[in-house]
Amino acid sequence: MAKELKELTSRSENYSQWYQDLVIKADLAENSAVRGCMVIKPYGYAIWEKMQRILDNKFKETGHVNAYFPLLIPKSFLSREAEHVEGFAKECAVVTHYRLKTNSDGSGVVVDPEAKLEEELIIRPTSETIIWNTYRNWIQSYRDLPILCNQWANVMRWEMRTRLFLRTAEFLWQEGHTAHATREEAEAEARQMQNIYADFVENYMGVPVIKGVKTASERFAGALDTYTIEAMMQDGKALQAGTSHFLGQNFGKAFNVTFVDKDGKTDYAWATSWGVSTRLIGALIMAHSDDNGLVLPPHLAPIQVVIIPIYRSMEQLDEIRKKVNGIADNLKKLGISVKFDDADNRKPGWKFANYELKGVPVRLAMGGRDLENNTIEVMRRDTLEKETVSCDGIETYVQNLLEDIQKNIFQKALKLREERTVKVDSYDEFKEKIEQGYFVLAHWDGTPETEERVKNETKATIRCIPMDDDNEPGCCMVTGKPSARRVLFARNY
Amino acid sequence: MAKELKELTSRSENYSQWYQDLVIKADLAENSAVRGCMVIKPYGYAIWEKMQRILDNKFKETGHVNAYFPLLIPKSFLSREAEHVEGFAKECAVVTHYRLKTNSDGSGVVVDPEAKLEEELIIRPTSETIIWNTYRNWIQSYRDLPILCNQWANVMRWEMRTRLFLRTAEFLWQEGHTAHATREEAEAEARQMQNIYADFVENYMGVPVIKGVKTASERFAGALDTYTIEAMMQDGKALQAGTSHFLGQNFGKAFNVTFVDKDGKTDYAWATSWGVSTRLIGALIMAHSDDNGLVLPPHLAPIQVVIIPIYRSMEQLDEIRKKVNGIADNLKKLGISVKFDDADNRKPGWKFANYELKGVPVRLAMGGRDLENNTIEVMRRDTLEKETVSCDGIETYVQNLLEDIQKNIFQKALKLREERTVKVDSYDEFKEKIEQGYFVLAHWDGTPETEERVKNETKATIRCIPMDDDNEPGCCMVTGKPSARRVLFARNY
Repeated sequence: MAKELKELTSRSENYSQWYQDLVIKADLAENSAVRGCMVIKPYGYAIWEKMQRILDNKFKETGHVNAYFPLLIPKSFLSREAEHVEGFAKECAVVTHYRLKTNSDGSGVVVDPEAKLEEELIIRPTSETIIWNTYRNWIQSYRDLPILCNQWANVMRWEMRTRLFLRTAEFLWQEGHTAHATREEAEAEARQMQNIYADFVENYMGVPVIKGVKTASERFAGALDTYTIEAMMQDGKALQAGTSHFLGQNFGKAFNVTFVDKDGKTDYAWATSWGVSTRLIGALIMAHSDDNGLVLPPHLAPIQVVIIPIYRSMEQLDEIRKKVNGIADNLKKLGISVKFDDADNRKPGWKFANYELKGVPVRLAMGGRDLENNTIEVMRRDTLEKETVSCDGIETYVQNLLEDIQKNIFQKALKLREERTVKVDSYDEFKEKIEQGYFVLAHWDGTPETEERVKNETKATIRCIPMDDDNEPGCCMVTGKPSARRVLFARNY
Repeated sequence: MAKELKELTSRSENYSQWYQDLVIKADLAENSAVRGCMVIKPYGYAIWEKMQRILDNKFKETGHVNAYFPLLIPKSFLSREAEHVEGFAKECAVVTHYRLKTNSDGSGVVVDPEAKLEEELIIRPTSETIIWNTYRNWIQSYRDLPILCNQWANVMRWEMRTRLFLRTAEFLWQEGHTAHATREEAEAEARQMQNIYADFVENYMGVPVIKGVKTASERFAGALDTYTIEAMMQDGKALQAGTSHFLGQNFGKAFNVTFVDKDGKTDYAWATSWGVSTRLIGALIMAHSDDNGLVLPPHLAPIQVVIIPIYRSMEQLDEIRKKVNGIADNLKKLGISVKFDDADNRKPGWKFANYELKGVPVRLAMGGRDLENNTIEVMRRDTLEKETVSCDGIETYVQNLLEDIQKNIFQKALKLREERTVKVDSYDEFKEKIEQGYFVLAHWDGTPETEERVKNETKATIRCIPMDDDNEPGCCMVTGKPSARRVLFARNY
């Protein structure tokens, strides 16, 4: 069984297969009977719950409240905003009937043709339309603004090629939808949420990100600006980890949401929307994990410390248990989640492999000699380093070690990204570096045509126009035309 | 505006309209553009979040874990369990297509006939079928059991007559789905969850419940036993506040979920399922609120204490603020949620009416004379009693008052139920009492025919066979046939 646990494809052999194996073997998720929809298993869901709790607190600290809007959206709502319908109509689940009936031959149930809806309903791919239709009644005066709502929900986009967590027909997410009296306030909100996402992904997920804005062709359908955070996976590909959109007055106009301002003038409300999804779990896995299994950052690990007894007799197990219970209690008092695994139907070796696979950050093991010496073996999952340390002060030791691991995971990912990010000035070198899995900073002439050509020829897209101080102008690597600054190209998930 | 706030229909005038008004005016929820689907507004959702947090902790303390299963269910799954399909096929939203396309005349989008699904998908009305289809792969041996999963999710049942929270096409709920190796263990689980629900509804919602089992005709479609908790609303009608089902091996057999037991024999797994929904918010409102608005139990109130300054000048407001900030901080340290409302665009009278409407359990008000005397005015929402007390020790005073209110709300509801519950032995008296809005304990001959007749003639149903010690046999009030014990009849929501 320990062998079976280890049967992960290695990253070097086949990165994509390694990911797929890992999601399944670590019990995070699996495909369901419904094409493209996943089952999120308890261990995977526990990670999502930790993410939710942290993000939800950050949203509330910045004045947001949660609400819930309908799953179904009238088909006609989609058409109200021209770009929005273009972006979402092609991939949505359509409800056409509201009843089944027994088949006349008794062989099960069929759709009842008499229960056809007058207007078809769409399962929300995102909720701007239904929410802005609701906001119309909530907003009359500038006194009603801002509205700062968030929703935790499931959404559906009918994807043809799906991968667990990364791209599924149904996924879980949060979507914030805010309404403001001024353009400036809405833009500041969109940037604030980008910063909150960046803080979360860097300091909790341990994944460094590049903050930037999307080009026109990569923007959210209906946005004036899309702010993004882009992360590098271990294969050098980019993953868009969160986006925050400044929607201008597009939805205000489409749904006729107006307000009277302080001077008595009527204007359309300004909008933002922003979201992160269960896709982040995919990012978490791909950024840190190794050929032995998951590597979870301590700030998000459902189990932070596992304690495994190694015993020859039940008497010895009792002695170990006594000693270890004290340690576990003290760790819990420090807010650390601990599991003591004394199941007697598995050998220690199997347990070791299992918790490596599950990415538990710290493993403690205690055997007969440890009992005699008042010591315990400590293994850290990120480096797999083992050490035998005294039980005196072990709690502080473990607490510090967890913070060390959190930092180390981030530093390792940052180092990888720095090593695999290059500035390039010729299109030939660009192609070479993209093929090798680099993030490439290159000059671009700002046209969608050049962007499209690069995408077709290299499969690399402009991930973002970085929001940093590197504003040196230059010449487009493809056309030689003037470029205001380098932009970030990469292949992506 | 204060007048407008008060324009609630009174309960005696029209109970049903009072409820509807209150949900809207207290900003809890509203109807959406999609028939039968509601928007849960931030204040209503904050109550749901409190409920979720408390229930989720209780589930986890008893060994349950959360997971997530697909929204959509293949149509054929429903037919696998004969009673289940009968119960749910008639009221479900059916997805038949997965794409829209631009109308050929350019007038919006239409369903793309080429994107028709081979098999229609149903939006889950409940998830037994998709979950038991998944469990088949999770369960091989008794070592894989029990499985104790819960899911927080949205579900959809196409109701024709809907009422906010009480009966909506889409609603939010949790659904627990467990699998066990023995009948005894599954039955114990179903009863455990009934007890957890009863504890929650009585000690957090402040609503007394009667625990019982459903008769065969009132059971969940596919259950061998449905355990229920029944609450009385202020109009004397019953509301089923939570149910827990012992499903026997029905779903194990329907989805071929077998396991090898300790003796090497193969058997079907035993199942339970249990759920409560946003309907509980409806129960909360109807059980306690009055003609001035909501009355929320302190254990679930999003804002437990509101503090309102009454001032003549900005200098005085500053003084009040200084004093009140200290009190607010101390209350927060005690874990009490406090709002200091110093908005200057509303008069104190408006604020008083508003927080009464919103059901905030305790209101503190401080004016100039209070400042001089080191006092503060305290109003409790449940009785509307006011008192002026010293600021010294006000925090403990408020903390105790909140617990008092919690108990008083429960006692008041209990008293109402006791006054409106009668034992009746003749069918004539039964009809009279049912018409007057009583819970009636009467003898019944145990047949679905008598049950059906009573229902047709009086609109009263058997809410449950109570699980108490009152096991005196008697004669059916309708047929005179023998009855093992009295059962609980009432009209219901």
